[in-house]
Amino acid sequence: MMYAAIMGYGTIGSGVAEILTECKDKITRSAGQEICLKYVLDLREFPDSPVADRIIHDFQVIESDPQIRLVVETMGGLNPACSFVKACLKAGKHVITSNKALVEAHGTELMEIARENKVNFLFEASVGGGIPIIRTLYRCLMGEEIQEITGILNGTTNFILTKMDQEGAAFEKALKEAQELGYAEQDPSADVEGHDTCRKIAILTAMATGREVHYEQIHTEGITRITDVDFQYARKMGMSIKLLGTARISGDKALAMVAPVMIGSENPLYGVRGVYNGILVKSQMLGETMYYGSGAGKLPTASAVVADLIEAVQQDKEPVSAGWRNEQQLMEESGKFRYRYFVRIEGAAAQKKEQIQKAFGDAETIVLEGTDEFALLTGEFFEEEFVKRAIGFDTESQKAGEDGIRQMIRVQVQ
Amino acid sequence: MMYAAIMGYGTIGSGVAEILTECKDKITRSAGQEICLKYVLDLREFPDSPVADRIIHDFQVIESDPQIRLVVETMGGLNPACSFVKACLKAGKHVITSNKALVEAHGTELMEIARENKVNFLFEASVGGGIPIIRTLYRCLMGEEIQEITGILNGTTNFILTKMDQEGAAFEKALKEAQELGYAEQDPSADVEGHDTCRKIAILTAMATGREVHYEQIHTEGITRITDVDFQYARKMGMSIKLLGTARISGDKALAMVAPVMIGSENPLYGVRGVYNGILVKSQMLGETMYYGSGAGKLPTASAVVADLIEAVQQDKEPVSAGWRNEQQLMEESGKFRYRYFVRIEGAAAQKKEQIQKAFGDAETIVLEGTDEFALLTGEFFEEEFVKRAIGFDTESQKAGEDGIRQMIRVQVQ
Repeated sequence: MMYAAIMGYGTIGSGVAEILTECKDKITRSAGQEICLKYVLDLREFPDSPVADRIIHDFQVIESDPQIRLVVETMGGLNPACSFVKACLKAGKHVITSNKALVEAHGTELMEIARENKVNFLFEASVGGGIPIIRTLYRCLMGEEIQEITGILNGTTNFILTKMDQEGAAFEKALKEAQELGYAEQDPSADVEGHDTCRKIAILTAMATGREVHYEQIHTEGITRITDVDFQYARKMGMSIKLLGTARISGDKALAMVAPVMIGSENPLYGVRGVYNGILVKSQMLGETMYYGSGAGKLPTASAVVADLIEAVQQDKEPVSAGWRNEQQLMEESGKFRYRYFVRIEGAAAQKKEQIQKAFGDAETIVLEGTDEFALLTGEFFEEEFVKRAIGFDTESQKAGEDGIRQMIRVQVQ
Repeated sequence: MMYAAIMGYGTIGSGVAEILTECKDKITRSAGQEICLKYVLDLREFPDSPVADRIIHDFQVIESDPQIRLVVETMGGLNPACSFVKACLKAGKHVITSNKALVEAHGTELMEIARENKVNFLFEASVGGGIPIIRTLYRCLMGEEIQEITGILNGTTNFILTKMDQEGAAFEKALKEAQELGYAEQDPSADVEGHDTCRKIAILTAMATGREVHYEQIHTEGITRITDVDFQYARKMGMSIKLLGTARISGDKALAMVAPVMIGSENPLYGVRGVYNGILVKSQMLGETMYYGSGAGKLPTASAVVADLIEAVQQDKEPVSAGWRNEQQLMEESGKFRYRYFVRIEGAAAQKKEQIQKAFGDAETIVLEGTDEFALLTGEFFEEEFVKRAIGFDTESQKAGEDGIRQMIRVQVQ
């Protein structure tokens, strides 16, 4: 028997308690011993919940109880989560967290403390909800040099983009529906501005390189500027638009970005729809593998926490080395990314032929009937090169008294 | 430093040797110590290979060398692979195999011997090539009750079906191309008759239930009877045809089948094309997850072997419990599967309306212009029920002096 405490009885914390009860036999068999939930720390009371008798309000109870070997942190936020987690690790307790902000901001320090105290610090649930992507990186691909990770890592934005794609909905309408269904927060900015995806790709990049990556280092664009017109063009080209977190690793350097990207049906991420997440990994020997599942939700996320709990029990004496070193990953400028570009321009293509050729070289032209514009699909450019060319084109247009580029969306190069 | 031997220097064995050399630093870091390849057992000489100085022809050298802690079995076949593996396990060596026939036929016994001798017996590469599906089942989903596993598990047949789907090719033409490209054997029966898929779904079912499953217990159909006409209908319905190995688990009972099945674009397996494999797992808490990658090929498969080698080193003192007990899994008759059915019938739908209604109830009718037939998409039936109804329909047709059902393909019920 090993005793556990849960800190934070919200959606995920209560899901963990539920699974520990409902799947007790299976968990005991897998872990090799029973996991017994002794405390649930929360500011609130839950008199009608199945854990009513285990609710406590004082963190000291957990910290000072030597019987507690396992602590689940599902409070969210950095404060007091960070100091509580540190105290637990220092007290020789294994810590499992679902808190991506904590892992992204303080992971390096917490991993060091865990190593010093010979305990497990596991965080599967912080990325990709129930998809076992963190464990895949440290358990399955550990002999591989990871070359690229590209993921649909946020269910809310993927739900919105799927609605826009399948139903031709405008962004605002799709967002409203996501809010009504409880998929999006009333303040949706963390999702739709790409910040949530950014924290997750930062964690995955750090896992892949073994070095610290911070989200401030990653160029991030959200989906608020994507319109139903963009999807009309995308459909015409047999493509879809997805919010992708991408990291490319080459030698000592990594390159990461969060942005909406057009992808074709040959891309395994094309079929990842609705609130699902998908993560495509390219590695040296194995080539492309993809991992797909519920990126959020009470039970899927709680299931990932429980898998970590089982592993912590199994590895009680030989803690797992899951994470990265206290060393900064060298990040390249996002201008080194290479894409094709989808560009929407006011006017008629025939009249701007020369100007387009000069700015972008050979490009495919796509026309949507009944509009006052056209679109280009350019060849491949480095981002920094493309930006120069786009500015050049806009300057020429202004000189001629015309509007220039209305929209630019990156297009995945296979 | 831990010493290893490879038995069988074929495609996969030589891939393992190559990765051990090329990725030495990463492997040493992950495993915590260097893995040094000491012997390569093969009947042949390889004077020009990088392992020329380590080639041996006598198994006794490996068995009796106490320095060898790790043995990779990539010989294939049951004899002498099985007796060699047994001897290694009994001599206290960890064994990694890529041999699905061995795991399916003798896995139970080999797992027992491994447990008795406190060594690892790992077999990631036996299913799904490089996709880490075995490890996902024992490392990531170990708290979950698995409810269903459905996989595209054979790259050769998926290549053939993809050709038929995308290019309208006939089966024979697509098979010939697969043979020319080296994806299909000259005798392709193990692939196209479904036997390879069957062995793999047997292993996955055993992993999911924790009990022994043999491939003879699984109803198996191949793809040789699938025609380009079937794909014409499928496309018209927005579907594709895939060779699926499926296992459903409910309580103490499991239900498994290998057969070509029509699936729609909402199914995550729909986008698994060419020689790729995909495995969809439904489990109690996590819901649907999918794992996608190269199902075969030298380096992807060898990469899975190397991941097992690293895990065996990491778990040298506490062997992993990956596998099943010496206990037979109760298997239900495949008649208990529930599908919708695609049925092709000679003649004109209008003239058989009554007869169809009597046999199959309400069904959608699909007509391909310029043919002497039509097709039905029936409602849901248990397989045993559908068979009765189909026989009834055929009997009526014969009485009327008409041909009956030309083709039947199961259709996935979501």
